[in-house]
Amino acid sequence: MTAPAVHLASVGTCLPGDPVDNATLAKLVGIDEQWAEMFIGNTARHFAVDLATGQVRDTLADIAAAAADRALAQAGLDAADIDCVVMGTATPDQLMPATVNLVADRLAIDNVPTYQLQSGCAGAFQALDVARSLLLAERCATVLVIGGDVCAKHLETDYDPASRSSAELVNYALFGDGAGAAVLTADPLGESLAVRQILNRLVGLGREPGQVIDWFGLGDRHSDRTAVFEDYKAIESAVPLLARQMFWELLDDVGWRAEQVDYLLPPQLSARMSERISAAMPAPDAVRVNVVGSVGNNGNALPFLQLAELLQRWRGPGRVAAVAVESSKWIKSGLALERI
Amino acid sequence: MTAPAVHLASVGTCLPGDPVDNATLAKLVGIDEQWAEMFIGNTARHFAVDLATGQVRDTLADIAAAAADRALAQAGLDAADIDCVVMGTATPDQLMPATVNLVADRLAIDNVPTYQLQSGCAGAFQALDVARSLLLAERCATVLVIGGDVCAKHLETDYDPASRSSAELVNYALFGDGAGAAVLTADPLGESLAVRQILNRLVGLGREPGQVIDWFGLGDRHSDRTAVFEDYKAIESAVPLLARQMFWELLDDVGWRAEQVDYLLPPQLSARMSERISAAMPAPDAVRVNVVGSVGNNGNALPFLQLAELLQRWRGPGRVAAVAVESSKWIKSGLALERI
Repeated sequence: MTAPAVHLASVGTCLPGDPVDNATLAKLVGIDEQWAEMFIGNTARHFAVDLATGQVRDTLADIAAAAADRALAQAGLDAADIDCVVMGTATPDQLMPATVNLVADRLAIDNVPTYQLQSGCAGAFQALDVARSLLLAERCATVLVIGGDVCAKHLETDYDPASRSSAELVNYALFGDGAGAAVLTADPLGESLAVRQILNRLVGLGREPGQVIDWFGLGDRHSDRTAVFEDYKAIESAVPLLARQMFWELLDDVGWRAEQVDYLLPPQLSARMSERISAAMPAPDAVRVNVVGSVGNNGNALPFLQLAELLQRWRGPGRVAAVAVESSKWIKSGLALERI
Repeated sequence: MTAPAVHLASVGTCLPGDPVDNATLAKLVGIDEQWAEMFIGNTARHFAVDLATGQVRDTLADIAAAAADRALAQAGLDAADIDCVVMGTATPDQLMPATVNLVADRLAIDNVPTYQLQSGCAGAFQALDVARSLLLAERCATVLVIGGDVCAKHLETDYDPASRSSAELVNYALFGDGAGAAVLTADPLGESLAVRQILNRLVGLGREPGQVIDWFGLGDRHSDRTAVFEDYKAIESAVPLLARQMFWELLDDVGWRAEQVDYLLPPQLSARMSERISAAMPAPDAVRVNVVGSVGNNGNALPFLQLAELLQRWRGPGRVAAVAVESSKWIKSGLALERI
């Protein structure tokens, strides 16, 4: 049985600095432009760090606060209207304080519960789901939900491009930084969308992680273990299947037929992968909303960027199915939205 | 208005290795035993790392899975009965996959939503509150809640004790490793306790953080910035006040009078601090449950260790008020339990 709806009142996003195209990336970090175009397909991304100087321009708190500000303005709300904040990120600025609390401080939000999820590509869906549960449980009425990632701590900008490994070069072409935010409310607000369902399913039993991001502490930071690992073969074979599974699971849950879906927000891995997954997804007539090609894979921000793109194009009634897959320990997530 | 109750069915805990007393700490890391006794007051703690050799014996996933196993056994449940897992930690083993998903894998829990909060001393309350909201929203019926911290990455065991700073020595005497878990259910199960309320309030507006724990990435791990910082003066002055505020806020919310509280679980900073806070808390006749002195400050695990201690001592009906304060960006949390 589908739970009662909560409402998506607004979306805001923030991409730091100017877009960095493949030619610039080729010059700065020695990536092969044609290879990036052919195998990744992303044409641009944004970085919170100036690649030329290594200077960190924006923290996650900076861009998350900017995205949240825009979501609040879009919904016509003030900080005082927010009675809970939920944020998802894989790359918090620090372990403590949780970045969500620094963002709340910037926005002058205080005396409310705040939660920060340690999450990857399914993080936006997890944060929206926690917010939705808090609303359905009548613990609060207006939740600010934020997702974002900044890979500044993982970028090396102080040595010779020629010595970079190919795995590192892939990461420059694939990833980017960004933040998104949304306001979720118990009661409809303005032109809001009804959130019919959000599903999150860990499906990692007995499976090796497809993505590992490690951190170093005071005691082990000089160790030379691998800090970032992606099993691209496992990702390429598992994600399309998990995306289709989640699509059907979501539709079954909300009682929609595939042909009733007007917009489909597919998993955003890279432009090439997302095109392939999009093409192989059910509901061939549903309009696909893909954004990763122009903004890079910025993890917890991506679904918010897809939603912002959707809301720009879309007027009138309709149904939206969004699917995300996190390759870390394998999570499949789905979101069903409706405007009547 | 108080929300309907959910139920605490069981608690499990895990402390890694043997307790490390102050004499051992004096020998291994050069701490002054009398000073530790006088100013910290903790007599023992557990470490997931062998201080003598620097070898990491247990990960957070190891001890969290052990605690969770015990909570499941205590509740008479199997992994298949769990339909959601919520975990809180400040020190995940890796950024991705979230440790909660590795724990789920160990326990053979699959195809359910999992959430990991990035949290400190209020983390157990935050995780319990997210679990409670998921139950009240009827998103699930039986949630495994976990909290734990492992400071292995922050311990330096490979250099001369004489060169350690006093701030580092304080941290050895103050902190420890551990994990705890609880099963929360929508319907009462066996000898369960009714969870009447959980409150979490960020109160950091315009205040400097009282605790900072930083992490290093691939790109910045050789920087020499400070990784761990505590403002003990701010903590000493703010925590007793915030604890009292939360106590009254909680009682006001559930409609209890102070003299109706049978057990009080005060914030667990260090043995000395917790004794002082306990003494200054209202409800002088309520039995205080303090555990930090014998297990060290193990962050997200501590409230579970207090609950386990409480359940060992306590039979029959009664009321429990628990309070935690997180000094990172200042969070006050409260939990009200009742057995009828």
